[in-house]
Amino acid sequence: MNEHAIGIFDSGVGGLTVLQQVRRLLPGENLIYLGDTARVPYGTKSPDTVRKYAVEAANFLIQQRVKMVVVACNTASSVALQLLQERLDVPVVGVIAPGAQRAVSLTRSDVIGVIGTEGTVASDAYPQALRQLKPDAKVFSTSCPLFVPLAEEGWAEHEVAHIAAREYLAPLVEAKIDTLVLGCTHYPLLKPTLTAVLPESIALVDSAEETAHTVKRLLVEHGWLNDQAEATWKFYVTDVPRRFVRVGEAFLGAELNHVERVTLDFVDHVTP
Amino acid sequence: MNEHAIGIFDSGVGGLTVLQQVRRLLPGENLIYLGDTARVPYGTKSPDTVRKYAVEAANFLIQQRVKMVVVACNTASSVALQLLQERLDVPVVGVIAPGAQRAVSLTRSDVIGVIGTEGTVASDAYPQALRQLKPDAKVFSTSCPLFVPLAEEGWAEHEVAHIAAREYLAPLVEAKIDTLVLGCTHYPLLKPTLTAVLPESIALVDSAEETAHTVKRLLVEHGWLNDQAEATWKFYVTDVPRRFVRVGEAFLGAELNHVERVTLDFVDHVTP
Repeated sequence: MNEHAIGIFDSGVGGLTVLQQVRRLLPGENLIYLGDTARVPYGTKSPDTVRKYAVEAANFLIQQRVKMVVVACNTASSVALQLLQERLDVPVVGVIAPGAQRAVSLTRSDVIGVIGTEGTVASDAYPQALRQLKPDAKVFSTSCPLFVPLAEEGWAEHEVAHIAAREYLAPLVEAKIDTLVLGCTHYPLLKPTLTAVLPESIALVDSAEETAHTVKRLLVEHGWLNDQAEATWKFYVTDVPRRFVRVGEAFLGAELNHVERVTLDFVDHVTP
Repeated sequence: MNEHAIGIFDSGVGGLTVLQQVRRLLPGENLIYLGDTARVPYGTKSPDTVRKYAVEAANFLIQQRVKMVVVACNTASSVALQLLQERLDVPVVGVIAPGAQRAVSLTRSDVIGVIGTEGTVASDAYPQALRQLKPDAKVFSTSCPLFVPLAEEGWAEHEVAHIAAREYLAPLVEAKIDTLVLGCTHYPLLKPTLTAVLPESIALVDSAEETAHTVKRLLVEHGWLNDQAEATWKFYVTDVPRRFVRVGEAFLGAELNHVERVTLDFVDHVTP
């Protein structure tokens, strides 16, 4: 099992921030990444539709014989994690619980903010996860629909990103949060902007790093760690790779090679 | 044939600006609108993928026995119109040629600007259509990726829309265009912003109105006009209707009733 790859999927390029952390922490692991770029984004779509897409993406990874599936997308983690855990025979890791754990370990006032896509915020997944760890936590959530297009446009630190961030986050600042969960894998690119517009006292939580630690812990528990010298990283996308490579390299800060197009429509037509 | 509906499709809500003009000009026609909201947007996706989605959307309308298909999406019109015209037995109308005709009739300097999605601009469809009508025309195009999310966020007239518009359009203003084609069905919502940031001398071209005239002309030519007193308008979407209704009502300035969810994945799996 050890030499089998870890499978990671996202609606598009955002999950590359998770892949990056997994690669940093576990450089000996083979990784397979799937970006569902023909149907991106998930964040504005309904739970039903996201569940269908997530099942198809996970099935593709299972066909590649991965030893673990990482749902590197907050929206899919919010609405499809349990379904995937019930359906798949390998461990399935989402990004919500790790982000919630980190937030709870950082907060002092127990007043926590969460930002994410419309889908993630509507799902109430973060408040539920946070309150499970800390029943007295007060959680304030808001969606920031422009952050994903701003990040993909390369405008994450542009003047309009500052204005949008100030407007989106005003209610959370007013609610006196001391910790802010970046509940979307695109948002780490906006860290400099968020740091600039938020009071210094607010700590930012990026789920990616914490998720990588969860992945490592599970591999250790199963005895599946791989520490080979030469690991392979493969990338699959559902649309032609050109845009994924262009935007993804900005996310990853590295070249994206071995990107191949696949079709998920034919993989599984059983809707959840 | 007359009482058969006109079929209109778009990736999401944007095509409602076209439906609105058709409804205004042809109030006696039955209309069927399909928004492919489970896979929206088309503008960032490859020609291949957009062609596949357009064929599936058109096939759905054909199953509803429409007498004509209107491709109310600039991206799909740019890359899939010819394919649909070859494949379907009913007339297929896109939004590019009508917009180009209108631009050519308005320009005095023959220096024309076009704004659209990444897909529309990359396709070169507008410059080709414009030069076919006016071989000496100089055409300057640029994509405005934030305009669609801004329109859907209800921020079409927000300060950030003004800043983004000024930045996107600076090269076209510098090129001294006297006419600007709004090459995306979302962009009419940004008209007040564009009017505010552009020199008064630049005329704005909205394809929707011109497309409605093309539809009427074709119906007259075929003898298929319908001028019944009580026309029906039906709306179908591929994701759950909630978001479509919310955003669409802002586009349409009217209530959206009779919105039903359908699945296109099973309609036609033959990729173009």
